[in-house]
Parts: sequence; structure tokens; C-alpha cells
Amino acid sequence: MKRPQVVETVSDLRAVVREWRRQGLSVAMVPTMGALHDGHVSLTRIALERADRCVVSIFVNPTQFAPTEDLDKYPRQLAADLDRLADAGVQLAFTPTAAEMYPQGFDAKVTIGGPSAGMETDFRPTFFEGVATVVAKLFLQTLPDCAVFGEKDYQQLCVVKKLCRDLDIPVEIIGAPTIRDTEGLAMSSRNAYLSPVELTQARQLNKILRKTAQALQLGAEPQETLDEARRQIINAGFDGVDYVEARESNTLAPWRRDRDGRILVAARLGATRLIDNVEIAAV
Amino acid sequence: MKRPQVVETVSDLRAVVREWRRQGLSVAMVPTMGALHDGHVSLTRIALERADRCVVSIFVNPTQFAPTEDLDKYPRQLAADLDRLADAGVQLAFTPTAAEMYPQGFDAKVTIGGPSAGMETDFRPTFFEGVATVVAKLFLQTLPDCAVFGEKDYQQLCVVKKLCRDLDIPVEIIGAPTIRDTEGLAMSSRNAYLSPVELTQARQLNKILRKTAQALQLGAEPQETLDEARRQIINAGFDGVDYVEARESNTLAPWRRDRDGRILVAARLGATRLIDNVEIAAV
Repeated sequence: MKRPQVVETVSDLRAVVREWRRQGLSVAMVPTMGALHDGHVSLTRIALERADRCVVSIFVNPTQFAPTEDLDKYPRQLAADLDRLADAGVQLAFTPTAAEMYPQGFDAKVTIGGPSAGMETDFRPTFFEGVATVVAKLFLQTLPDCAVFGEKDYQQLCVVKKLCRDLDIPVEIIGAPTIRDTEGLAMSSRNAYLSPVELTQARQLNKILRKTAQALQLGAEPQETLDEARRQIINAGFDGVDYVEARESNTLAPWRRDRDGRILVAARLGATRLIDNVEIAAV
Repeated sequence: MKRPQVVETVSDLRAVVREWRRQGLSVAMVPTMGALHDGHVSLTRIALERADRCVVSIFVNPTQFAPTEDLDKYPRQLAADLDRLADAGVQLAFTPTAAEMYPQGFDAKVTIGGPSAGMETDFRPTFFEGVATVVAKLFLQTLPDCAVFGEKDYQQLCVVKKLCRDLDIPVEIIGAPTIRDTEGLAMSSRNAYLSPVELTQARQLNKILRKTAQALQLGAEPQETLDEARRQIINAGFDGVDYVEARESNTLAPWRRDRDGRILVAARLGATRLIDNVEIAAV
């Protein structure tokens, strides 16, 4: 397959997109931090069903990592990523440096209330500020018609939708189903950190969530059920559960039985932090 | 003259701009809070020299007023404003409601560090957050090629330039010279609040600033000179001086003699707060 064109500057990115626009082509974007796996490929597939051209950004965004987090060891593998994008038929990869994204004197912040409150924010207080700011920049650099985000990062998906709605960023946000291995483990670049034993333990997480969702749909008391899920996750070998919560699907307000909901979890396995989520159908 | 087309919703605004783009026309924007005067008209003139079409937004933005400020009594005069825009040859007026700009659940904030620190921010702590957020929205609703802002609100002009640079908003910001009456008083919608006596006093402000700039250019010691300016403003009849400062023209960092600078002032006359600024040429 043909390798995607690679651009590293905003001005080169805009030149390519401008030429596409001149030809009347529509454009979809898939923002990533690289270390691409089948989950990302599924996003590009949806992007190319929606638009004539797909641009994938690969940028390990320092502002969404806390000083204690895994910025330095986050997996980076550009050559392999470009091979994956070639297989997927992606036309353009945008791989800016940190200096291109955050030049000397950069000092802007975009904060989104609503869905960014709680859960991830309780454990990573500036995470969504970093995400909202970099996604706003990527969208305004590219101005795609639409962008595809995985439901795997469900709270992030809700934050990005809210970002575009509140700031009138003219980009349609498309949520894409989580891609899982045969055991149900959600694809994640951070799975690469897991030892074989941890991998077996990690595979319990989604099974527990699905059972918990089923119990809630059948009428079980929410807090007791979530407390039980927390115990099961620890019993499966996890070292800690940051949160396991039931929320409304769209607003991420506390879940009510008559609404579509989502169970969201973050749990730690050794030095690795995994997140996942499953649907609770409205009764 | 032909009255401008008036649209009240983002979707109508985008439909007009989309049609202009289809015709290959360039678009300039002049964001205003209405109560249009000769200063605003000069901005539209510059806009129409730069672009084929000009859209003027008229929106008294509640988020940039503090609870103690003059939101309720801020002058509103849409019919007269539209006459002015007709005379100026402006093609489109965008007059959204507060509910159109800030629908239920709206919760985003854009903050810009750098030039927003100090001066206005010391007295109106959330002012530039309100300005940056609404200007980002207006730009992303309209996506003009350029936008014209008056140098009268000099700190705001610097904040808007920084906003576009930091968030990659693809709009060129053009600063336009302050329009003054024959005595040097800067045009401002808030001048309408002044009694005849206050008007005479207000007219001293720019004269004092110009003399202060001259003194600095001739080598006078900055802090003493600014302290003297403060005394002169009070002697002219002002009830208080919020700040009078010398800053670098672009970054608004403290002024250094070898750089182009700006003296910026905010002073109170009765219930009215006036701002102005003048250039300090580099020696």
C-alpha cells in the first residue's frame, strides 16, 4: 500500500487540506498519540467511510500528562504507525513537534465543564484541559468536516463533543465502538506495558463490567452493585480501582434508571492504568 | 443606502457566509457590542478595504461584564446601528441572542495568559476570559479571513491576536487606529454616559497621555513620569485612576526604553470608566 504523505508543520498541513478543498473533497480527521493498534485502524475505516480523505495526527501531547505520568515511556513507533496507516488507506499523517504545537510564549487553555467533571478529572486534574486545548488546536489547524474518536475513552469523547458544541467548532464528532480482543480486553496503546500475567488479569475487567451492567438493567441497587464490581476488580488481581461509576450516556450526569447509561472504570494493574466502559441500556 | 442583511442564528450566519465562499468572495469581520460610533465605522471601512464582504456582529456579551458593571444600562440601539452599517456599506449584521450564544449547559472557557495579565485584569478579573471565549465563538461561527479590532482597546487587541496565534484560529487580526474627536477624546460607546462637564474633563486624558509619552521618549524616568501622569489625571477632574502603565507594544511586558511601547490607562469619571492608550516610539 501507498504510505501516507507526512507533514510536520501546520502550514504544510493546511496546504494539503486547501488543495483537497479546491478539488471539492471532504476531509475526516483521527487525532491519535501514535502507537497505533486495531482500535485506531477501525477509526480510520469509519473516517474513510464518511469522507474522501483522512488525516491522522500523531502527537504525544505533553500537556495531558501529569508530571508523575508516563509521558517519557509512552510508546513511540512512527515507522510502524505509518505502515499501519498505509494499510488503512490513510492519505495524510500530521506529526508535529511539541515546538510546532506549543511555540515559545504559548499560554492558552480551553476548559470544558459539564462532562469533564469527576472520574478522570479526580485522578488527572488537568487532563481534559490538555485534551480540550490540543484537540481545539488540531481541529482549527485542519478544519476537517468530521473527526472520529473511540468510545474506549468515553469521557474524552463526551468532552470533545461538548468542546465543539460550546465553542462552535464546525467539526462533526463521531464516536466509534471500542475494539476488543477475543477475551473482551479493550485495545489500548498502554496494553503494551502488561506482562503476560497482568494481561490475563486485565481481561477480567470488561467481563466484570458487562455483568455489572446486566445486573443494573435487571434492577439491582446501583451503589451496592458498583461496590461489588469494585471488589471483583480487586479480586481479579488489579492493584486499585480509581473509580467505577454509572453515568448518563450523553451528559455524564449521575445515571438514572430511565436513561441510557454507561459504566465507566479506571483501574490499576502494576504501573499500568487501564480504562474501559460499557453501555447500560435504558429499562 | 441598502440596509445590511440581518441574521440572528449561527446557522443563518453560516448559510450566508457559505454562499459568499461559493462565489469566491473574501470575508472580513468586525465584532462589536453595538452602540456604533465613528470608531466602529472606521473599522468597517478597513474591513471592506481588505475583503469583499463585511459581517458586523452586534452582541452585548454578558460574560465580559462583572455583576457590578454596566451590562443592563450598556447602550442598545439596533435600528440606529443598522442605519450606520447601511451607510458604511456593510453587507451582514449578526445579532444573536444570549441564548443563541450560550445555550443551556454551555460551560466552556478560553483563557489566554501573556497579554491578559495585569491592567484590565486587575480591575475586571474575568473580563478577558469573557472576551476570548466570545471572540473564539464568533470567529468559529463565521470563519472570516480577517477581523478588525480598534487600538482603543489595546490590551484586548493583544489578547485577541494571542488567542488566534495560540489556538490556531485561522483569522488574521488587524489593529485599527483609534478615532478621536477634535480634542483627542477616544470614541467610545461609554462616552454617551458623560455629562457636559465630564466631557470637558474626559478630553484632558489623551492630552496628558501624549505629554507623558513625549517625556518618556525624551528620557524621563518611567515610574516618576507615570506617577506624575496619574496626578495630572486626578487634577483634570477624574475620580480615580485604575492604572496608568508603560508596556511593550506587542507582548505587553513592562516597557524597556529600546522597544516600541504603549502607555495604557483606565480612569474613572463619576460612574463612567474610560480607557485610552498612546504609542511610545522606540528611542
